[in-house]
Amino acid sequence: MIRVGIVGASGYTGGETIRILLRHPQVEIVQATSESNAGHYLHTIHPNLRKQCQLKFIPIGELQPCDVLFLCLPHGSAMRRIGQLESLAKTVIDLSADFRLRNADDYVTWYGHAHEAPAYLAQFVYGIPELHRQEIKKSRLLTGAGCLATASILGLRPLFLHDVVARREVIIEAKVGSSAAGDTPNLSTHHPERSGSMRSFQATGHRHTAEILQEVGLGQSLDVHFSATAIEAVRGILATCHVFLKDGVEEKDIWKVYRTEYGNEPFIRIVKERQGIYRYPEPKILAGTNFCDIGFEKDPRGSRLVVMSALDNLVKGAAGNGVQAMNLTCGLPETTGLEFPGLHPV
Amino acid sequence: MIRVGIVGASGYTGGETIRILLRHPQVEIVQATSESNAGHYLHTIHPNLRKQCQLKFIPIGELQPCDVLFLCLPHGSAMRRIGQLESLAKTVIDLSADFRLRNADDYVTWYGHAHEAPAYLAQFVYGIPELHRQEIKKSRLLTGAGCLATASILGLRPLFLHDVVARREVIIEAKVGSSAAGDTPNLSTHHPERSGSMRSFQATGHRHTAEILQEVGLGQSLDVHFSATAIEAVRGILATCHVFLKDGVEEKDIWKVYRTEYGNEPFIRIVKERQGIYRYPEPKILAGTNFCDIGFEKDPRGSRLVVMSALDNLVKGAAGNGVQAMNLTCGLPETTGLEFPGLHPV
Amino acid sequence: MIRVGIVGASGYTGGETIRILLRHPQVEIVQATSESNAGHYLHTIHPNLRKQCQLKFIPIGELQPCDVLFLCLPHGSAMRRIGQLESLAKTVIDLSADFRLRNADDYVTWYGHAHEAPAYLAQFVYGIPELHRQEIKKSRLLTGAGCLATASILGLRPLFLHDVVARREVIIEAKVGSSAAGDTPNLSTHHPERSGSMRSFQATGHRHTAEILQEVGLGQSLDVHFSATAIEAVRGILATCHVFLKDGVEEKDIWKVYRTEYGNEPFIRIVKERQGIYRYPEPKILAGTNFCDIGFEKDPRGSRLVVMSALDNLVKGAAGNGVQAMNLTCGLPETTGLEFPGLHPV
Amino acid sequence: MIRVGIVGASGYTGGETIRILLRHPQVEIVQATSESNAGHYLHTIHPNLRKQCQLKFIPIGELQPCDVLFLCLPHGSAMRRIGQLESLAKTVIDLSADFRLRNADDYVTWYGHAHEAPAYLAQFVYGIPELHRQEIKKSRLLTGAGCLATASILGLRPLFLHDVVARREVIIEAKVGSSAAGDTPNLSTHHPERSGSMRSFQATGHRHTAEILQEVGLGQSLDVHFSATAIEAVRGILATCHVFLKDGVEEKDIWKVYRTEYGNEPFIRIVKERQGIYRYPEPKILAGTNFCDIGFEKDPRGSRLVVMSALDNLVKGAAGNGVQAMNLTCGLPETTGLEFPGLHPV
Repeated sequence: MIRVGIVGASGYTGGETIRILLRHPQVEIVQATSESNAGHYLHTIHPNLRKQCQLKFIPIGELQPCDVLFLCLPHGSAMRRIGQLESLAKTVIDLSADFRLRNADDYVTWYGHAHEAPAYLAQFVYGIPELHRQEIKKSRLLTGAGCLATASILGLRPLFLHDVVARREVIIEAKVGSSAAGDTPNLSTHHPERSGSMRSFQATGHRHTAEILQEVGLGQSLDVHFSATAIEAVRGILATCHVFLKDGVEEKDIWKVYRTEYGNEPFIRIVKERQGIYRYPEPKILAGTNFCDIGFEKDPRGSRLVVMSALDNLVKGAAGNGVQAMNLTCGLPETTGLEFPGLHPV
Repeated sequence: MIRVGIVGASGYTGGETIRILLRHPQVEIVQATSESNAGHYLHTIHPNLRKQCQLKFIPIGELQPCDVLFLCLPHGSAMRRIGQLESLAKTVIDLSADFRLRNADDYVTWYGHAHEAPAYLAQFVYGIPELHRQEIKKSRLLTGAGCLATASILGLRPLFLHDVVARREVIIEAKVGSSAAGDTPNLSTHHPERSGSMRSFQATGHRHTAEILQEVGLGQSLDVHFSATAIEAVRGILATCHVFLKDGVEEKDIWKVYRTEYGNEPFIRIVKERQGIYRYPEPKILAGTNFCDIGFEKDPRGSRLVVMSALDNLVKGAAGNGVQAMNLTCGLPETTGLEFPGLHPV
Repeated sequence: MIRVGIVGASGYTGGETIRILLRHPQVEIVQATSESNAGHYLHTIHPNLRKQCQLKFIPIGELQPCDVLFLCLPHGSAMRRIGQLESLAKTVIDLSADFRLRNADDYVTWYGHAHEAPAYLAQFVYGIPELHRQEIKKSRLLTGAGCLATASILGLRPLFLHDVVARREVIIEAKVGSSAAGDTPNLSTHHPERSGSMRSFQATGHRHTAEILQEVGLGQSLDVHFSATAIEAVRGILATCHVFLKDGVEEKDIWKVYRTEYGNEPFIRIVKERQGIYRYPEPKILAGTNFCDIGFEKDPRGSRLVVMSALDNLVKGAAGNGVQAMNLTCGLPETTGLEFPGLHPV
Repeated sequence: MIRVGIVGASGYTGGETIRILLRHPQVEIVQATSESNAGHYLHTIHPNLRKQCQLKFIPIGELQPCDVLFLCLPHGSAMRRIGQLESLAKTVIDLSADFRLRNADDYVTWYGHAHEAPAYLAQFVYGIPELHRQEIKKSRLLTGAGCLATASILGLRPLFLHDVVARREVIIEAKVGSSAAGDTPNLSTHHPERSGSMRSFQATGHRHTAEILQEVGLGQSLDVHFSATAIEAVRGILATCHVFLKDGVEEKDIWKVYRTEYGNEPFIRIVKERQGIYRYPEPKILAGTNFCDIGFEKDPRGSRLVVMSALDNLVKGAAGNGVQAMNLTCGLPETTGLEFPGLHPV
């Protein structure tokens, strides 16, 4: 059994990591931290864990060594204590933004502050298995990816890898549910204000842009025009991405690109149907699953390709992707513990 | 492996049965029928089954013998062909209303027509394991229960069994999501009309009343005052039930009643917290699970006890309960295949 | 022109009062207070008022005399400063709970503290025009009513007035949207937690029970069994009420009761259709309106009558009812400024 | 009084036209047609009109001459009977797509069929007052505009008029509620399937593109890259538009452009706040109003300008805009009957 600890276990990402790992046949959750909830049962915060788990939150200072540590702390916290935390476990999987960017300067540019542990940046692997499977297998320091970044990158990267795009430019409009903003109440998340909203909370300058540049740019220049809109949903992301194809590239070529990249991926499905009402990816049927569904449609009147990429921000956009990466580093089948297929209707 | 067929597999109950059984370690789904979708992959109707299953719908006439048949037909269909269907399988689990009532006259009273196969009524067992575990084990003909009835009965029956109630009278207000009305579009389910509604679709005369009378009345007279309101949700039922306790019965006595009845039940949780926001049962965290969460509160100013009972109408209210019953008849642990704990937040 | 001031104008009730009065042809809003937003335009808090109003919030200490003061303060605030406030205006309309109950002891019983200005209780009129039209006309101190109480009282009072009820007992299950809980964010109103919920937030002991006892009991004993459930909606209340009729009372008698009481009421509609999907009251089509829609159905199998009463908690349940009462005291047609008919679909 | 008839009055656009005109002080609704509902009261279909209107639907064959006819028929119907209909009224306002495009060939291109009354195309004015006020005043044949087109055009046209855009290219991602798809139930609008969806129903090839080309292109070539996504809402559109500015154009220049074009417009508000949660346009607070709220944000890292444009598809995107145009042709203040300011919270 892999002995796992979750640091920052009272948040939504922490709770989802626990939810998944409780059913993981090779994992035992041995500790879960929360400063403000120390001493209380996990299910006092995560009511879906009733009768599932008798663990109590502990303060971070009481962490014991274990095999794998998941860090689910607010952004900015992990970098301050990474030295101590990485000494406690063979493998550390940080689901915050603190180690996602390879270039320390990018933290100044996108996060507005210098990185506090820049020496670690080269050691962490950007932990999306579909992108960096071999590096993940060899690494003991893994970082998760931004939820909006994951949807965008998985949708767009194959097109740039296969060089079918005419312009080095993408326009992305990402729609996202309320759980992506975390578990802290404020006026913008107050139900009467947030319910039914279509809120342009980040029309420009979203921090996940940096990850898309890093992982889709592939070392060359790229213009990423990213906007994010909060809509009525708790879980779920749909990234609608526009790129412009080289002359002569047709839909069948795009099929080939995606099949080449993702044909064997257990968690990526190409969704493009001629009929039915779920012809393209839809996040609602992905709630609780680790899938990223990707679809595309070429504009018959021009060179534009629209790529639609959907996932559950708390699973493939956070906890599930982290467990998938953990499975890789531990030599387990990647899908272990991640078999939930999603609900319909829902 | 138990070889299972699903009859009427394109509806919501059929789809949910498939969703659950695909992950059941002892089950192989060998056939699934739909007249109008024959020849198409299951995932054309149930998009959550993409990459999960390569089965195609067949017409009912092509059914082959198998171990267990789940009948997920519209009400009124199973009674017409039960003779033929039961000859095809060792065990038949009917999730429609056709064999739920023990008394054929009740079909005239509550469904407005005579039963077409009344001889079978005595052979079917009302298949809620928490009520009739021993009979289910010995039977090969099982019926599911109404979703609203299941929530009401599981919440109320212990109080009558333990004789703590002063009046033989219950008042039930059941709130229910849209999936309970099935998969056929009409004006009342058209999104602009149904969204955000609080619709008293059955203030009196709901058919599930007959099941509550049968299973809570325990052979004695009982007044069941039942009303049902459709509210904004896809899945989920919350039954708010009012009964009046005998003098001197206190909350601690009610705790004891429920603990006695349900203390060892894997799918029933008594939810009654002093703090937090999920102090009482809430169906949203039960989506996809087989739990029925039950809570209660005694009015400090009188003898009224309010019982709150929540479940997912498609799982514990239909498919999940059926699988639980199947596990019983097959000698498997009841929880097999039903381990999904539910999501939070959602 | 009637010169109106709104005290506590940054809350939902205050904002709704302003929204209505801005279109009132006989009213000029001259002042609106908010301590925390003093100096800011009203539309910084109430974005629907953009381009509608150039007023800024002032602190309560800067209030000037005017004709009518609407008090929209949190419960407990108005009673502390009523002496000062009533000296500023000819008419005071308090939309908090502070002067709703005629008996000071009821505040101890239901609110858990002694009333701080009990001498005023006899001077305030319970300001639902359908109940106390003549007293309202003659009074300068009016109190609003609880939103859940208003729905319940308007639905039930005629039955007790006309003595058609066999038992002096009512069971009420009220479903309510999130705006009824006010504008202060907390974990229970955090969108990921509140969205899609069916939350039994007050199964017993709800404070509005005291108003129902006062206004439906008509001086005699009455058992009010009230439960409240928060459901997915921002605005809207549906109270589902159960009473038991005397022998021989039929639906046509109930029609007569309601027609007698409400036949000439501009804001009450009896909604009971044989066909269509809006056969009974539904709050969603009442958003923004001052209507209370009331429907009923007698159980053909017994003496139970189910009464369904729907309204917008911020309008007929608060601000709109207050404006209707103001119109009465000012000798204006009651409907002035309250003509919005509601939207469909919505 | 202006005597108005509504043709196709049982649909959502027809119902909204009636809702608005019932409160219009200069209008009397004299007739409303519906073939399938002929003989029934309007409120049997539009429940918000209860106690508001005693009119019954008539068949179209019984139409009498009147001053203004609103045509709210399904697309393709008005062109077939325009000769007859225009003979019945001084002014015809067609809210379908049948006369929106000036070039008959565009109907072949975008609608897939030849226009059946092409001679009328030159006579109809594209009836968005903010675009064609003077022509509307002089015309008796007016056409409404597509709801998604209206949002996009009002957001983008000023930028092209003022020549601040570097590329003749726009990328638009429009999010839209379910009422835009009309009142006919089908599987894609069935509540369990439609609820909570983020559905890319038209990633390319949307017909409203033709209107955007016509009204934003201003006679020159333009690439309009338009995608539409259905999201959880009944009413409301948010168009998120991306354009690329000429070097040196800053946000203050954009402010100037919009102020020049819209500074005196009663129904357009520039929404761009530094603080608060409604910093940019949000359709939910526009439900029932005739506003189009427009906001913008320049990417500080490049030349991209994001324009956000919000409206209620049934009001400014259909019925309200039609009434505004009618007011113009009738010499009335444009805002007459359109004063509803919208609700908050909602």
